[in-house]
Amino acid sequence: MPSPILISLDAMGGDHGPSVVVGGVRDYRARHGGEGVRFLLHGDEAAIRAEMAKCGLGEDVCEVRHTDKVVAMDEKPAQAMRRGKGSSVWNAIEAVKTGEAAAVVSAGNTGALMAISKLLLRMSAPGLERPAIVASWPTFKGITAVLDVGANVESDAAQLVEFAIMGEAFMAAVHGVDKPTVGLLNVGSEDMKGHEEVREAARLLREGGFNLDYRGFVEGDDIAKGTVDVVVTDGFTGNIALKTAEGVAKFIGTLMKEALTSSLMAKAGAALAYPALKAMSAKIDPNAINGGPLLGLNGIVVKSHGGATAAGFGSAIRIAVDLGRSDYMTKVGTSLQRLTAVLEHPPASPAADMETSQ
Amino acid sequence: MPSPILISLDAMGGDHGPSVVVGGVRDYRARHGGEGVRFLLHGDEAAIRAEMAKCGLGEDVCEVRHTDKVVAMDEKPAQAMRRGKGSSVWNAIEAVKTGEAAAVVSAGNTGALMAISKLLLRMSAPGLERPAIVASWPTFKGITAVLDVGANVESDAAQLVEFAIMGEAFMAAVHGVDKPTVGLLNVGSEDMKGHEEVREAARLLREGGFNLDYRGFVEGDDIAKGTVDVVVTDGFTGNIALKTAEGVAKFIGTLMKEALTSSLMAKAGAALAYPALKAMSAKIDPNAINGGPLLGLNGIVVKSHGGATAAGFGSAIRIAVDLGRSDYMTKVGTSLQRLTAVLEHPPASPAADMETSQ
Repeated sequence: MPSPILISLDAMGGDHGPSVVVGGVRDYRARHGGEGVRFLLHGDEAAIRAEMAKCGLGEDVCEVRHTDKVVAMDEKPAQAMRRGKGSSVWNAIEAVKTGEAAAVVSAGNTGALMAISKLLLRMSAPGLERPAIVASWPTFKGITAVLDVGANVESDAAQLVEFAIMGEAFMAAVHGVDKPTVGLLNVGSEDMKGHEEVREAARLLREGGFNLDYRGFVEGDDIAKGTVDVVVTDGFTGNIALKTAEGVAKFIGTLMKEALTSSLMAKAGAALAYPALKAMSAKIDPNAINGGPLLGLNGIVVKSHGGATAAGFGSAIRIAVDLGRSDYMTKVGTSLQRLTAVLEHPPASPAADMETSQ
Repeated sequence: MPSPILISLDAMGGDHGPSVVVGGVRDYRARHGGEGVRFLLHGDEAAIRAEMAKCGLGEDVCEVRHTDKVVAMDEKPAQAMRRGKGSSVWNAIEAVKTGEAAAVVSAGNTGALMAISKLLLRMSAPGLERPAIVASWPTFKGITAVLDVGANVESDAAQLVEFAIMGEAFMAAVHGVDKPTVGLLNVGSEDMKGHEEVREAARLLREGGFNLDYRGFVEGDDIAKGTVDVVVTDGFTGNIALKTAEGVAKFIGTLMKEALTSSLMAKAGAALAYPALKAMSAKIDPNAINGGPLLGLNGIVVKSHGGATAAGFGSAIRIAVDLGRSDYMTKVGTSLQRLTAVLEHPPASPAADMETSQ
């Protein structure tokens, strides 16, 4: 029997609040059984209890902690930090800080979640300004983790190595990959390509003794190919790559819908092909891969998309449970200590690595 | 009647050599008339003449300049510069240098084309290490130009402004947009987002008096939305965004093909919807948007994809002709002078712009 675990939920976050959060608990249990998993729900008690009744969930699964206070979706992070104390997201994170809960999930304001998590839990990866966000990206081979897709706009070599360490441990813990392969996102695969940070990170990954299966540089199209299990990049490039990809997927999806409704014949064809097309779109359904952990904190924090459905929120819960039950935190802790040691006594830099980019 | 123009072609470049290059001339003339447009083809005379005969093209349209020498697709740029003299790509570029031809098109080795173009033509934009490559990106609203998708790995604020100037002139000359709108690619739309280079570039574009319709920061998903006509970014991010998008498009296309051949019923549906699906895929056909100009040189150089079809090479020729006949070079020249003046006497930097990124 799996070990008991308590997951803290911000029941008021996201576009739909308690209906999606409590619905997410039901959906998670329906799909994954959820043996030994209990939940701590923070927010409006009456609203949460009404949803629990609808979903047939009792006190044995969901404990409710009332608060009236909510951080709005458009509140600035600095404001949320000043005024957010006692809000549903604040209390949900605090339950992880005190050790009561093993992980927290919120579909609320990303900036506020980051800022309050950092304030309450503190960074465990010393070089990071902000938590790194990892995206689970559907590929020809399954799922590839891409990070940072968040807000570490300028990432130096040490930060890129931290992303590699955390991303690898994430893939092992959540996607069950035995020895995940790691690549650094670059504009070419030759050693001398790219800027200094990415070349220095490559050297540290090759020579630092992190016990990672580092495979070298990968390019943008390697993400969807699934060339490696973990694609590491700075938060600027990663954020732009992710949003560009979402834009392209939406564009093609819209063109396809338009095409398949453009004539009677096309509509008839679409009806016949419907089961096949539905099975296909399940493979790239954003709700199936919803849930981006904020890595680099002393505690597990998972961000759900604000517009996620109950099924989507259930996916985010799954990630929180799998991370919480795994040895992710210990494993990352050990590797980050190793990184600190390497940075204090760096391996000698061979001349070949100092060549200018081409 | 349009003014007469001579276009220089590297007939040996690309995966298919003269068949696609000469076929491209035929295709260009079939689609665009090509009145007043003549071609100078560099490469193996016998092979070129054989293709000309097949395509029904005579001396009045195509002049052949024989050379045996070819730069291989996998030759390193430095090697191509040392040993490339007299090759088809070298001679094709030289015809632009001497003023004989108005523009050159090659489907050959990108690195070699860049290096030899830079050597023979020299950069006109003083801050650039290498020519910037612009991609014509299909969007909900038509075409958006994205640059640099090439090799200027670290682009400072002045370079980003150069990309904006050149991209805007390109959209006006080639895609017939009257007053193209310009955006800077970033991780958010607020003023304080992103790294220093992109924030400083925003300030220069707002205050530098370049007569550009600058619309501020855009995000990755704004590319496919067509939010602006020109998206400006450094060569690292741009290259990764483009290749990531290509990977995603290919992934979705493959899933769709698999779905539509997965069962008899799906196949029947696909057959009925075939005309609609074909019309749709024409909208994102890479050959229809083939041709990436190398901007920032004293001369017009257009890179065709190495694997392009004759129709694709014809699209690249179209871009070369439109750029060659437009006031692109003069317009960019004037704006780059303005940039030099602004950099020598920069507008005062308001405190708001100096805030750290968020």
